[in-house]
Amino acid sequence: MLVVMKAQATPEQIQAVCEHIEQLGFRAHPLPGAQRTAIGITGNKGEVDRGNLESLSGVAEVIRVSKAYKLASRDVKEEDTIIGFAGTNASIGGRNLAIVAGPCSIETPAQAFAIAEQVAAAGAQFFRGGAFKPRTSPYAFQGLGLEGLRIMAEIRDRFGLRIVTEAIDNESLALVAEWADVIQIGARNMQNFSLLKRAGRLRKPVLLKRGLSATLEEFLMSAEYIMSEGNYQVILCERGVRTFADHSRNTLDLSIVPAIRRLSHLPILVDPSHGTGRRDSVLPMARAAIATGADGIMVEVHHQPEKALSDGPQSIYPAQFVTMMDEIEQIAPVVARHLPRGIHVAAEV
Amino acid sequence: MLVVMKAQATPEQIQAVCEHIEQLGFRAHPLPGAQRTAIGITGNKGEVDRGNLESLSGVAEVIRVSKAYKLASRDVKEEDTIIGFAGTNASIGGRNLAIVAGPCSIETPAQAFAIAEQVAAAGAQFFRGGAFKPRTSPYAFQGLGLEGLRIMAEIRDRFGLRIVTEAIDNESLALVAEWADVIQIGARNMQNFSLLKRAGRLRKPVLLKRGLSATLEEFLMSAEYIMSEGNYQVILCERGVRTFADHSRNTLDLSIVPAIRRLSHLPILVDPSHGTGRRDSVLPMARAAIATGADGIMVEVHHQPEKALSDGPQSIYPAQFVTMMDEIEQIAPVVARHLPRGIHVAAEV
Amino acid sequence: MLVVMKAQATPEQIQAVCEHIEQLGFRAHPLPGAQRTAIGITGNKGEVDRGNLESLSGVAEVIRVSKAYKLASRDVKEEDTIIGFAGTNASIGGRNLAIVAGPCSIETPAQAFAIAEQVAAAGAQFFRGGAFKPRTSPYAFQGLGLEGLRIMAEIRDRFGLRIVTEAIDNESLALVAEWADVIQIGARNMQNFSLLKRAGRLRKPVLLKRGLSATLEEFLMSAEYIMSEGNYQVILCERGVRTFADHSRNTLDLSIVPAIRRLSHLPILVDPSHGTGRRDSVLPMARAAIATGADGIMVEVHHQPEKALSDGPQSIYPAQFVTMMDEIEQIAPVVARHLPRGIHVAAEV
Amino acid sequence: MLVVMKAQATPEQIQAVCEHIEQLGFRAHPLPGAQRTAIGITGNKGEVDRGNLESLSGVAEVIRVSKAYKLASRDVKEEDTIIGFAGTNASIGGRNLAIVAGPCSIETPAQAFAIAEQVAAAGAQFFRGGAFKPRTSPYAFQGLGLEGLRIMAEIRDRFGLRIVTEAIDNESLALVAEWADVIQIGARNMQNFSLLKRAGRLRKPVLLKRGLSATLEEFLMSAEYIMSEGNYQVILCERGVRTFADHSRNTLDLSIVPAIRRLSHLPILVDPSHGTGRRDSVLPMARAAIATGADGIMVEVHHQPEKALSDGPQSIYPAQFVTMMDEIEQIAPVVARHLPRGIHVAAEV
Repeated sequence: MLVVMKAQATPEQIQAVCEHIEQLGFRAHPLPGAQRTAIGITGNKGEVDRGNLESLSGVAEVIRVSKAYKLASRDVKEEDTIIGFAGTNASIGGRNLAIVAGPCSIETPAQAFAIAEQVAAAGAQFFRGGAFKPRTSPYAFQGLGLEGLRIMAEIRDRFGLRIVTEAIDNESLALVAEWADVIQIGARNMQNFSLLKRAGRLRKPVLLKRGLSATLEEFLMSAEYIMSEGNYQVILCERGVRTFADHSRNTLDLSIVPAIRRLSHLPILVDPSHGTGRRDSVLPMARAAIATGADGIMVEVHHQPEKALSDGPQSIYPAQFVTMMDEIEQIAPVVARHLPRGIHVAAEV
Repeated sequence: MLVVMKAQATPEQIQAVCEHIEQLGFRAHPLPGAQRTAIGITGNKGEVDRGNLESLSGVAEVIRVSKAYKLASRDVKEEDTIIGFAGTNASIGGRNLAIVAGPCSIETPAQAFAIAEQVAAAGAQFFRGGAFKPRTSPYAFQGLGLEGLRIMAEIRDRFGLRIVTEAIDNESLALVAEWADVIQIGARNMQNFSLLKRAGRLRKPVLLKRGLSATLEEFLMSAEYIMSEGNYQVILCERGVRTFADHSRNTLDLSIVPAIRRLSHLPILVDPSHGTGRRDSVLPMARAAIATGADGIMVEVHHQPEKALSDGPQSIYPAQFVTMMDEIEQIAPVVARHLPRGIHVAAEV
Repeated sequence: MLVVMKAQATPEQIQAVCEHIEQLGFRAHPLPGAQRTAIGITGNKGEVDRGNLESLSGVAEVIRVSKAYKLASRDVKEEDTIIGFAGTNASIGGRNLAIVAGPCSIETPAQAFAIAEQVAAAGAQFFRGGAFKPRTSPYAFQGLGLEGLRIMAEIRDRFGLRIVTEAIDNESLALVAEWADVIQIGARNMQNFSLLKRAGRLRKPVLLKRGLSATLEEFLMSAEYIMSEGNYQVILCERGVRTFADHSRNTLDLSIVPAIRRLSHLPILVDPSHGTGRRDSVLPMARAAIATGADGIMVEVHHQPEKALSDGPQSIYPAQFVTMMDEIEQIAPVVARHLPRGIHVAAEV
Repeated sequence: MLVVMKAQATPEQIQAVCEHIEQLGFRAHPLPGAQRTAIGITGNKGEVDRGNLESLSGVAEVIRVSKAYKLASRDVKEEDTIIGFAGTNASIGGRNLAIVAGPCSIETPAQAFAIAEQVAAAGAQFFRGGAFKPRTSPYAFQGLGLEGLRIMAEIRDRFGLRIVTEAIDNESLALVAEWADVIQIGARNMQNFSLLKRAGRLRKPVLLKRGLSATLEEFLMSAEYIMSEGNYQVILCERGVRTFADHSRNTLDLSIVPAIRRLSHLPILVDPSHGTGRRDSVLPMARAAIATGADGIMVEVHHQPEKALSDGPQSIYPAQFVTMMDEIEQIAPVVARHLPRGIHVAAEV
């Protein structure tokens, strides 16, 4: 259910409607838009009585949302969600493309700084690096943990790059929320609903990767889990699904990009590194992702991929990243987008 | 790496080898067999030096395990793992088939008792029921929680049935470990490695369901996560995978049963309810599962499926469960198995 | 559209209704049942006028068939289709299980006779062997062609076994129809509609294998292509579909068996050889297939599989075939079936 | 096996090597390149003796081709294959992008001409339209047949557009070869090896669509079937594969484009119409296809898609086609390509 407020509704009226909803035992989600504010109503207590709500002052209309996902739906919020990063010119969603680049894992300070320096120079605004790694084998390198987060915090200080890194459980979630700028929830945890809810109680952006066999509806429902707890800063990310095809590690399902953009207001990035698993396919698929209308790219870059502790074969070289940025910049105008180069951090934040 | 002890090795010798391994910074996993004890060595510190180990007293030979999964592998433990339940004649693995039956969710005491009574009467030894439900939608019924566990504890008291129920996060894991007999990890959490490790530190059997797009190797690697922490009581469960086929909710991949039995010593059950999603396919697929050599069946039974809060369309009626038991009993001898009927609990435990 | 005739309708009345239908530009398919005859109406000219048909003498009622497949549907013919082989006790469909066994390819007379002798001795009634092979590579062994058909004709003479072999195009279809008892259409040709229609104009049974990514509806629609041309003797065969799973060559989708039996009157066999691609999985899956309610098994048997020109790794040894027959015989009564042993051919046919 | 001739080898020397190969019972495939001619050797008679060949005059070296596909492999022919159309500036492969546009089915002359006029005006060089339709149902519209071919021949005369249309069996193949410029083999016939061989004996370009569950290797092996018969003018076309994803009709697997370009010299087009099944996804995926490096687009255009006899929901409007052309034109330079607008036919051909 969605309450659409009148254009001239006052903050007090909006507040009063929210309180009324919460008194009924539901949860109210005020979603400000360019013209008017909408208030999403969620909860598993059955239907809200519509008549009463329509009679509250400032209310324009009450709409039933028929989709399973509500807060994530474009029916509820027509404008694209744009996630800003205070004190910087960086954003995810909207006209500007967002580029997240870095190694699969943070291995050593030297490795991380070397890569960060090069992706910053090429114009990335976001740095990715795994500190907590969800590995298929219990005997594989599991990441540097807190030490990795500290290294990335230093990268933010030195290069201004905003940090995206994965949380895999309660403990790492608390640490990632403290040290990073965007909390990544990986494909294997896309339906770890307990983790999603916990991330929903934080007030940091969450980058949610599509599960290996998730349908579009399941993907948006997982976003809904985060949003239903009050955190509306969700970034989706397509990273390939599992099929019979064996020429790539996964099958990058780019057709989900226009579908998501039609159905949801949330930004969607594409990860061509996990999506293909092959260095020589990363640039073609990054270009393709931008051409479909994706809001940006998340890509693995390593200066010595042959020595990488994880995902070496799918990491591109810094020089290839430079090429990728140039190519994306050329394609951007075709889809009414722009590629900002570099991040500008306000002196005093 | 695997240390095979001589048949006549003493407990002290086994202990000494384990201590030696741990001093090297690895983890030792003594795995007693019918003839001799083997000691699995795990850890992500690289290779152990073989020569030293071979010279310890009581050691017959040291074998490199080439598979990615080690403790779960039949190379390491040749005999089938049989999981017993103290004070009862119930077991999972080995000659006797295990039948786990009950509703998708515990809804009310009356519902749970009604179903439990009927599955107990038909000869089930294990009762399943969800108290913590991983639901695709945040707005769907999420289970009764602790209240559901209490109802199942009463079912154990009344009917003797051992309880299998799902844990979905740290909090529910602690509760399930306290109240139930078998901890279920669901398909969506098959690669929630943090939860797997935590379950590995408990000393209760863990029933691990195959993820919707998990390969056989990934499935065994997730079992390995639990075992690498010292909990060797792992039960696998096939419950269907996601494919293009639309005549069933999932595609039940029964060919994994002979493959698992070839590669691993762990027991494997089959869940034809989630595997098909259709009541009229449950019995045919339950029969088929037993015919492939599965160690048992996990099945949803509901006396009023049309009123079920979840999974009604795939729940069979109690009368169908009786038929299923009769059919399984007839097929069992073809695969050198036996279906025990009912659970016997020792008076004083 | 389906015209149901009264129980006491005369052959002349049935004939008159058929003629009326054909005059309207449609095709009439009289389908005799135990109680009454039904007449299927097909054609792509739009809807038939119902009123007129209902007024014809002998007509009980006229029913709209809403499924896409009509002649293949159980709505149109309730009783199981049983395909008999004149002058023998062999049949496919109904209470008796049908076992089709033999090598992937006919390689030499000696090889074919050696295998045929052993499968006949173990009680098979049907012999399979490829003379025309659809191979992925143009450079692989393509089969002996007519020579292979001649060898199989001799096997029929010597052992009584009825012959099942694949046709891959117009030329081979004409030859197979002349020399064999059942025309096989392979998975790769399941949607070779031109070949299906041509097979539909013949009056020999057609064994149609499911395509590697065919849905149930597509599978039945391909059967419908054959039936729409007047050949109602169609045998379906599940042989595995393509998924991400890599522990077997294909994923044998046994849950299609109860689904087909619910929706169609046509018999369905299961091929566990192509379905798994591994000798050690063939027997478990053959047992499972019978347990689901399949009408029989199609299996590759080779006395020297390590020397086979094709599909050696999935061919079972003759001794395993004997075991398979014994196991199937034991499971048969659970699903109200019977395994006839051996074929009896009338002296004078 | 591949015989590489010296750069200065004479036509007589090439001829002599070919004759020598054919005398050995193999087939010789002379493949002229920019620098030198290579001669592919195929046949299923086992290995050719290498020594003898190396001693023939004009031979530089003899190379073993380890891939299953040989003539289709870039190992055998390094330069991109470019297929020209005599008397016109149209081509497929190489620097110029090829755009094939038109309705799913030819329905009436008026429909076909209306669409042809508009796609020609927007700059297409190729017209597609089905005359022989492989339909899932025997009761669906099967195409106009020869009448459809005649209409398309008139379109060629009026607008210069070269004609691409599907052949589904021997009869339609003969007609399509006579009336059209490019013979299309559809996804369902990708492994109709008999049809492939027959198309391989013709000397018209063949557009081969990827099967719904074909691996890259199977796809190239089907091209190899055509080429092994001497027809080297093969155009590949990705059109989506079948997966669990339900937000699009098929899953367009764009990552096959860079993989094909790495492994084969054959041109590859992308069909975003069948690949997505949704009008609103066609343009995004067409842009993406060009961005991955595809050699062109095959797209369904209809001026009245709501009245189309087949595939209406995935056909774009002529105005969208104009937009698509403009967008492709802008992306082309990023991948070192050019979009020629319109076809120029020499006055006297």
